Amino acid sequence: MTAIRVLASELGSHIGQQVRVAGWLHRKRELKSVTFLIIRDRSGLAQVVLREVAVPADLTEETVIQAIGQVIASSQAPGGAEISGPQLTLLSPPAEPSPVDLYRPTLTAALPTVLDHAPTTLRHPLLRAGFEISAASVAGFRAALDARGFTEIQTPKIVGSATESGATVFAIDYFGQPAYLAQSPQFYKQAMVGVFERVYETGPVFRAEPHDTARHLAQYTSLDAEFGFITDHHDVMAMLRDVLAGMVAAVRERVRCATKLLDVILPQIPDPIPEVHFADAQGLIAASAGWDPRGEPDLSPADERWLGEWAVREHGSELLYVTGFPLAKRPFYTHQDPERPGYSRGFDLLFRGMELVTGGQRLYRFGDYLAAIAERGEDPARYDGYLQAFRYGMPPHGGFAIGLERWTARLTGAANIREVTLFPRDLHRLSP
Amino acid sequence: MTAIRVLASELGSHIGQQVRVAGWLHRKRELKSVTFLIIRDRSGLAQVVLREVAVPADLTEETVIQAIGQVIASSQAPGGAEISGPQLTLLSPPAEPSPVDLYRPTLTAALPTVLDHAPTTLRHPLLRAGFEISAASVAGFRAALDARGFTEIQTPKIVGSATESGATVFAIDYFGQPAYLAQSPQFYKQAMVGVFERVYETGPVFRAEPHDTARHLAQYTSLDAEFGFITDHHDVMAMLRDVLAGMVAAVRERVRCATKLLDVILPQIPDPIPEVHFADAQGLIAASAGWDPRGEPDLSPADERWLGEWAVREHGSELLYVTGFPLAKRPFYTHQDPERPGYSRGFDLLFRGMELVTGGQRLYRFGDYLAAIAERGEDPARYDGYLQAFRYGMPPHGGFAIGLERWTARLTGAANIREVTLFPRDLHRLSP
Repeated sequence: MTAIRVLASELGSHIGQQVRVAGWLHRKRELKSVTFLIIRDRSGLAQVVLREVAVPADLTEETVIQAIGQVIASSQAPGGAEISGPQLTLLSPPAEPSPVDLYRPTLTAALPTVLDHAPTTLRHPLLRAGFEISAASVAGFRAALDARGFTEIQTPKIVGSATESGATVFAIDYFGQPAYLAQSPQFYKQAMVGVFERVYETGPVFRAEPHDTARHLAQYTSLDAEFGFITDHHDVMAMLRDVLAGMVAAVRERVRCATKLLDVILPQIPDPIPEVHFADAQGLIAASAGWDPRGEPDLSPADERWLGEWAVREHGSELLYVTGFPLAKRPFYTHQDPERPGYSRGFDLLFRGMELVTGGQRLYRFGDYLAAIAERGEDPARYDGYLQAFRYGMPPHGGFAIGLERWTARLTGAANIREVTLFPRDLHRLSP
Repeated sequence: MTAIRVLASELGSHIGQQVRVAGWLHRKRELKSVTFLIIRDRSGLAQVVLREVAVPADLTEETVIQAIGQVIASSQAPGGAEISGPQLTLLSPPAEPSPVDLYRPTLTAALPTVLDHAPTTLRHPLLRAGFEISAASVAGFRAALDARGFTEIQTPKIVGSATESGATVFAIDYFGQPAYLAQSPQFYKQAMVGVFERVYETGPVFRAEPHDTARHLAQYTSLDAEFGFITDHHDVMAMLRDVLAGMVAAVRERVRCATKLLDVILPQIPDPIPEVHFADAQGLIAASAGWDPRGEPDLSPADERWLGEWAVREHGSELLYVTGFPLAKRPFYTHQDPERPGYSRGFDLLFRGMELVTGGQRLYRFGDYLAAIAERGEDPARYDGYLQAFRYGMPPHGGFAIGLERWTARLTGAANIREVTLFPRDLHRLSP
C-alpha cells in the first residue's frame, strides 16, 4: 500500500520499480494460464499480468481497483511496459455490469442511449476525448486573451429583461418577479469595456430553442470577448484570428492522445483569414452555385457550405470571414457601414462550411443607440440599465462569441453537437 | 494618428518619443496658463499637459479621448512621465456628466447608488480593483489545478430536480416542464470523477435565498473541484491548501496595483493549515469564550469569529480547518467518519473568522447512497441520474467549493459582498 501511485502513461519510465496503479478495470482477458487486466486511469491504459493466480470472480469491468507490482518492459503492452505479479485491491465494485461495453474500440449504442447513460458512457475513451479537446480549447482562448491585456469577468445569468428579443428566452420566477435566463453576456461585456477596455467571459448561455436539430441546444458555453479602441470590425477579426490560433495551439500541445484517437486534423489558421463581403459572397454563389441567393438578408446553410468549399479552392483556407451582413438581420447594437448604407460592420466566421463565430463592431454613442432602438419600434426604457454604459462615454468597440460545443463538434467531426456537450439540455432532455 | 498607442503604465519607457494615449478623461484641471488632463486607460493614469492651448469647452470628465504628443520626464506625473503639447481627438463624449465623481480618491455614494449606476461606478479605480483581484484569483485556481492533472468541465445549470433540497431553488419553465436552476455543480462534478478522476469548474450557481444580508446573493461564482483516489478528507484539505496558495500567488503576481490601492494584506497559507475537530472546537469555545455551543449541530457566526481569533493566537494562522461536522447538518452524500459515529469527513475552512470553503469526502458506494437517501426519508428515484455514476464503480473521492465573491470580499475587506460582485442579484436587485 505504500508504493507511490503512478499513472498508466508513466509506467514506461518506472521499469524495474515497485509501483501502484489505480483506476477502473477496463477489460479482463482470462487465458489458460495467464490473465490480463487492463486498468484505465485519467492518463490512459495500463496492462497488468497475472500468472497462475486465481482472479476474484466478482472482478467485473468498471470495478475500481489498484494493483501494486513490479514494472517490466513489454513490447506488447500499451506504453511498452506492464505490471507483473501484482497484489490487487478492490476499491469499489460496480453494483451491476455497465449498460455499454466501454472496452470496445467504438461505441455502437445510439445517441439517445449514450446520453441517457452519460455518467457511464462518458468514460469511453472516444467520448471523453471530445471533452479533453473542449477543455484545451477553453484554456487556449483564455491564454490568448490574457496575453493581450484582457480581464476575465463573471456576469449575471438572471436578467430583468430579455437581451435581444423576447422570442427564445427561458422565463424564471425571481422572488415573485418575472425574470429571464441570459441568452448572452452581450450587454454586460459591452458595459465592462467601459471599465477594463478588454474583457472576456467563458460561461453558460441559455436559449429556449424550440428546434430539434443536430446543432441547437438549450444551454451552451459561450466564449465571449469584447474590447475597445478599435478602428472598425477588422480589428475584431484580427483579434479573433489570434485567439483561434491560440486555441488550436493549446489543443495541439495539451491533448495529443485525444486528437489522435479522434483523427482530428487541426486547421491551419491563415494570417489574415480571407474575407468576402456579404454582397460579393451572394454574387459568387449566384454566378456559380446553381442558385441565386441575392436579395436574401442572410446566408442559408447551403450558402455557407458552398462558401466553405470556395474558400478552400480559392484561398486554401478552411476559415472564411463573411463581412457586412445586412443591418436588418443583425441586432440593434450592430454598427452600420458608413460607406454602404444598409450593410453592417458585423461578420460571421465560417469554419468548414458552417457559421462558428458571430462578431462585429458595435454602436458606441448614446444617441446612436436611442436612434437604433427607436427605429426598431422599441421602448428605450426597456434597455435602461444597458444604455447607462453609453450615456457616460464609451470608446469604439467590438467583439465576438465562439460557441464552444460547435467549435469542438467541427474539430472532431461529431455529427451531433450533443456528442461534445456534457449532459446536454434540449427540447426533450433535462436529465441526467 | 499613426503614432502607436502606448498604455499609461508604459509612458516612462517612451521618454522622448511621439506616442498616442487613449482612454477616458479622468480629471481636467485648468490653471491660469496650463491645463492638466488625466487620462485613464486599462493600465492606469497618464498626465497630459496643455500650455497656452484652448481646451474644448465640451471636454468633460468621462469623455473618451486620445492625445498624440511627446513623452517628457516629469517627477510630478504618475509614472514619472507626461505628454506635452498634444494633439487631442475626442472619440466619444458622454451624453451627460457622470452621476458620481470618478476622479475622487474615494467613492462616497451609498452602496445602493453605487450598484444602481454600476456601469459607471465600476470605472472607479477602487471598485475596479476588487474585480482585478477576483479575476487573478480565478486564474490562480485554474493554474493550480491544471498543474495537478485536473480537467475543466462545463455542467448544466438547468436541472430536472433540485440538487440537495427543494428549499432555495429558482423554478423555471422548461418547455412547459418544471425545472430548476442548479444550486451547485455537485452531482455533475462527482459523476465526472468517474470520467476524468480530477475535475474543476468555475461557474455561476443560483440560490433563491430570501435573506437580505451582506453575505448572501442569488447568483455567485463557485470555484468547484472534485477528485478521486483519496484516502480520506485530509487529501482534499491538502489539495485545497495548495490551490489557495496558488490563488494568493496569482494575486500577488498579476495585480500589484489593485492590492496596493485596496491595502490588501495577502494571507500566509501555512502548510499544513491547522485543523481542529468540530467537537474539540466546541469544547474550546465552551471553556474560554463565555458561551457554550456544545450540542449545537453547526457553528454560529460568533463561534467562527472566536475560532478565527483562536487560530491566530494558537497557530499564527488566518486559516483554520474545522473537521468532522455532525452528519445531521451535512448533505446526504457526505462520508461518515467510521471511527466517530454521528460525525462526518466533511470540513469547513475558516478564513479570517468566516466560513469560506466547504468540502469533504463523499460517499462512493452505490449501496451507501441508497441507505443515506432512505435514512433521510427521500425517494432514490428522484436521484436517478445522479446515482448512475455510483452504480458502475466510483473511487473514493472528495472535493470542495470556494465562493469567489466571499473570497474576494475577505481579501479586500469589503463590508458587503455586493461591492465585489459584478452586477449583483439579490432579493431586491435584478438590474442593471
